[in-house]
Amino acid sequence: MTNKLRIIPLGGLNEIGKNMTVLEYGGDMIVIDCGLGFPEDDMYGVDLVIPDVTYLVSNRKKLRGYFITHGHEDHIGSIPYVLQAANAPVHGTALTNGLIRLKLEEHEMTDTVELVTHKPGDVVQAGCFRVEFLHVNHSIADAVAFCIHTPVGRIVVTGDFKIDPTAADGMTDLARFGELGKEGVLALLCDSTNVERTGYTPSENVVAESFDRQFRGCDKRIIITTFASNMYRIQSILDIARRHGRKVAVTGRSMENILKVAGELGYLDVAEDEIIDISQIKNVAPNRLCIVATGSQGENMSALYRMAFSAHKQVEISALDRVLISASAIPGNEKAISRIINELYRKGAEVIYDKSEGLHVSGHACQQELKIVHALLRPRYFIPVHGEQRMLQVHARLARQMGVSPKHIVIGDLGQVIELSAKSCRLTGETVPAGRVFVDGAGVGDVGSVVLRDRKHLAQDGMIVVCLTLSGEDGSVLSGPDIITRGFVYVKENEDLLESLRDLASDALDVCLSRSIRDHVTIKAAIKNELSAYLGKYVRRNPMIIPIVTEI
Amino acid sequence: MTNKLRIIPLGGLNEIGKNMTVLEYGGDMIVIDCGLGFPEDDMYGVDLVIPDVTYLVSNRKKLRGYFITHGHEDHIGSIPYVLQAANAPVHGTALTNGLIRLKLEEHEMTDTVELVTHKPGDVVQAGCFRVEFLHVNHSIADAVAFCIHTPVGRIVVTGDFKIDPTAADGMTDLARFGELGKEGVLALLCDSTNVERTGYTPSENVVAESFDRQFRGCDKRIIITTFASNMYRIQSILDIARRHGRKVAVTGRSMENILKVAGELGYLDVAEDEIIDISQIKNVAPNRLCIVATGSQGENMSALYRMAFSAHKQVEISALDRVLISASAIPGNEKAISRIINELYRKGAEVIYDKSEGLHVSGHACQQELKIVHALLRPRYFIPVHGEQRMLQVHARLARQMGVSPKHIVIGDLGQVIELSAKSCRLTGETVPAGRVFVDGAGVGDVGSVVLRDRKHLAQDGMIVVCLTLSGEDGSVLSGPDIITRGFVYVKENEDLLESLRDLASDALDVCLSRSIRDHVTIKAAIKNELSAYLGKYVRRNPMIIPIVTEI
Repeated sequence: MTNKLRIIPLGGLNEIGKNMTVLEYGGDMIVIDCGLGFPEDDMYGVDLVIPDVTYLVSNRKKLRGYFITHGHEDHIGSIPYVLQAANAPVHGTALTNGLIRLKLEEHEMTDTVELVTHKPGDVVQAGCFRVEFLHVNHSIADAVAFCIHTPVGRIVVTGDFKIDPTAADGMTDLARFGELGKEGVLALLCDSTNVERTGYTPSENVVAESFDRQFRGCDKRIIITTFASNMYRIQSILDIARRHGRKVAVTGRSMENILKVAGELGYLDVAEDEIIDISQIKNVAPNRLCIVATGSQGENMSALYRMAFSAHKQVEISALDRVLISASAIPGNEKAISRIINELYRKGAEVIYDKSEGLHVSGHACQQELKIVHALLRPRYFIPVHGEQRMLQVHARLARQMGVSPKHIVIGDLGQVIELSAKSCRLTGETVPAGRVFVDGAGVGDVGSVVLRDRKHLAQDGMIVVCLTLSGEDGSVLSGPDIITRGFVYVKENEDLLESLRDLASDALDVCLSRSIRDHVTIKAAIKNELSAYLGKYVRRNPMIIPIVTEI
Repeated sequence: MTNKLRIIPLGGLNEIGKNMTVLEYGGDMIVIDCGLGFPEDDMYGVDLVIPDVTYLVSNRKKLRGYFITHGHEDHIGSIPYVLQAANAPVHGTALTNGLIRLKLEEHEMTDTVELVTHKPGDVVQAGCFRVEFLHVNHSIADAVAFCIHTPVGRIVVTGDFKIDPTAADGMTDLARFGELGKEGVLALLCDSTNVERTGYTPSENVVAESFDRQFRGCDKRIIITTFASNMYRIQSILDIARRHGRKVAVTGRSMENILKVAGELGYLDVAEDEIIDISQIKNVAPNRLCIVATGSQGENMSALYRMAFSAHKQVEISALDRVLISASAIPGNEKAISRIINELYRKGAEVIYDKSEGLHVSGHACQQELKIVHALLRPRYFIPVHGEQRMLQVHARLARQMGVSPKHIVIGDLGQVIELSAKSCRLTGETVPAGRVFVDGAGVGDVGSVVLRDRKHLAQDGMIVVCLTLSGEDGSVLSGPDIITRGFVYVKENEDLLESLRDLASDALDVCLSRSIRDHVTIKAAIKNELSAYLGKYVRRNPMIIPIVTEI
């Protein structure tokens, strides 16, 4: 048996999203996080992206459990899909498990998955691993880092974190980080999201102060959009609304869901009469009201989207509204957010979204915070995680500055096996299956690169079906060729073009038949080539051309 | 005859891109700018977006000329398309016309369009309008604003501008702005791009200083990507390369084209032996070389893109390269740029892209600069232009702060006629045709909302063709139903599903035939409904379903 620990990233490296890391030693395996990603622009029709977990499935017998750092989608979102294939107990904190339970309910899986709830400080034995839960600050409550006590030494996995000395639930447990550093940390796997930013991430308190400024003396209705999962911020809004004598109503499915979970678990300090149902807002004067809405990323049909485009049942936007965008754009969402802001302006609302207003702070550590963690833990080996290539490399540079030997830093990639012992940390060259599995509707993995290539082709220039029927007896043309197009040109205004295409197909067919060619593959190719050449030359487009030959 | 001036925005309002404004008085009409826009994410397959110029075509006889502020695509890009429909002389400065000529050559239109070249200070008579060219700073050389002396008074149209007191070709002509203010400006149409930003836009000099810092003591090859049209920046690179003893090579079609035009017109100060052809770079030591490349917006197949993805014929990226990204992302391009930076990092290159490095400055005026222009011109009426709704509204607020009466500010929209006299400025309520015309390949305007809707549908879930042949004699089924799919599922792994669909189509057909239904429309609808319901329920997808019934 090997006396080496294997670390295998299955998600979250060279990408933002679908975090998942495997730790394997002998006959035991645990998995840290089980997240999902959102589709890139060129993944047409894909709803979600989950990690390829072939390796977990093949090693199901070794699997001792999933350990989840916090309740964000990119850390919990794949659980319903992955556990259908490789079930094992899921260990998380109370809020994290509350959010996971919501997902399991949606997928009717509450009976099949074992959720085990822990507190920071708890230590869980899972095979040969002892997993210690460490309190950290992040933009969701109940986030933890893990110190995994393994046969080769201590491994710290930070998860997503920052250091907020004035956090409502206490600062990241730097005291324990310091002890671990003294006891000796073999390897550190650390969040790289904000490693390109100098200095510190501001405290969540800054946002609370900004809210207070926006409420003070405001005689308009106040509408705030933010991330549903940021309980601290929701609590700030509740506190400030109370202070300024406003009732709070929430709108948007994910906001309602998460508030329900947080409320049940006692994560929100709010009196019953401080919250009103969104259907009751007409009974409250606008300047006594604060509405908290989903849509901070410009999501289609989110609550704020519906307000902006006059499709929200209860909320009509006017010059009597002040809208606070308490979020920054996740890359790729800039335009969607901008469209909503423009529509709100057009309806006369005052919209506050500028960075200088302090309405949002990040949940991830900047360089100074990362340096504190490195200085406390003083790991022998360093593996930057949770970032794109450039972040991983910048984080490697920071680790070198903090005294980690360049030879002790490993930048991995998905599926690449890292082997760790007390004396070495290296890429073995071995790879396991890893990558993206697409979820589209009810289908998991049935959409792959060929299907996406076709969707892209169809999206670009549409398609042309050429339909014809030949006689099985003498090969004569019984009907067609007929042309049917979708997404190509506006048919009514381009009858001449379609007529030309029909003639070209007819000519190509005649040439084949005159040469006694009856083979369908050849006839289809001839028609396709003829049309494709014509369209490339005169229309400069490349629609998908699908000849269909029926013989009866 | 009316004694009122009509101002009609046909582009650039409530959008960034395709700038075009019509000025009309009695029997005379001039057009300011003739730009194009780039497609939004949901405009599948569209190459370019140009303004709807139906109004220009209907009033061709009145058209006295096009006046172009500068040579950026969003101000000149539609000229080849628009002038085919409504020809008139085009007035611009030397570099602007040089860039327009490139476009006309591409469209083989050099003989049909009259290009007239002017210098700042020139005044051009066009019908009843006298158009004065005013020097302004922008991120392209030879940019101008216009003061249009009309029968009702002076109208100033700033075009895109900023105020750069240390600009190589002199600051924006604030002296003349001041004189015009004293003479009396009736209305101001002013750039709103950066109105949300406080303070000043830094000088282009800042970038030159940053380049110098990056060159100093650098022993790597230096690769810089920037906007091809920013001649000042290219000149800075040439100057600094010379100072540090490096040869300059350029790569990328637009960069080569524009440098050729700028060189011919004498806009670049460079000795012949300072530039080398990209094919000759192997003859120069890497640390004596600077490569200027297209791709600052992450464009597919641009020079930098090809370098990053190992597809550039002459340039191979390694740890011996320092890459400077001298640009900021135009909204929507963030991810494409990020992908290139990650690939460059992966190949070991050092990549400098951080805002704090000062490698880019905007070409548009911030609040302080806009206030200077307002204070100098003191317009009676104000019409914010060149911006999305929120920018127009923020600019209106700034104008009020600068003393323009709220009633004298008009926020228009595309196609809305603004009527201006010495005593009033108002939206008349009249609208003319305006909007987006899509260019796709060789087709202009043949792709509309129906075609785009179909492309979107095809992109989301692909399509299913159901093909069957009926006997014209007795209605019996001669062949089919056969199922053909594209972009739906991976066929080989989903044969059962496709078989089920075939059975469903067959059943639907049988039901129709058993009821003696022979009408194709009804049969098609029955098949479509059956498949659609099944897919919605079990696969949760909505592919386009196209039943084709042939009767012979």
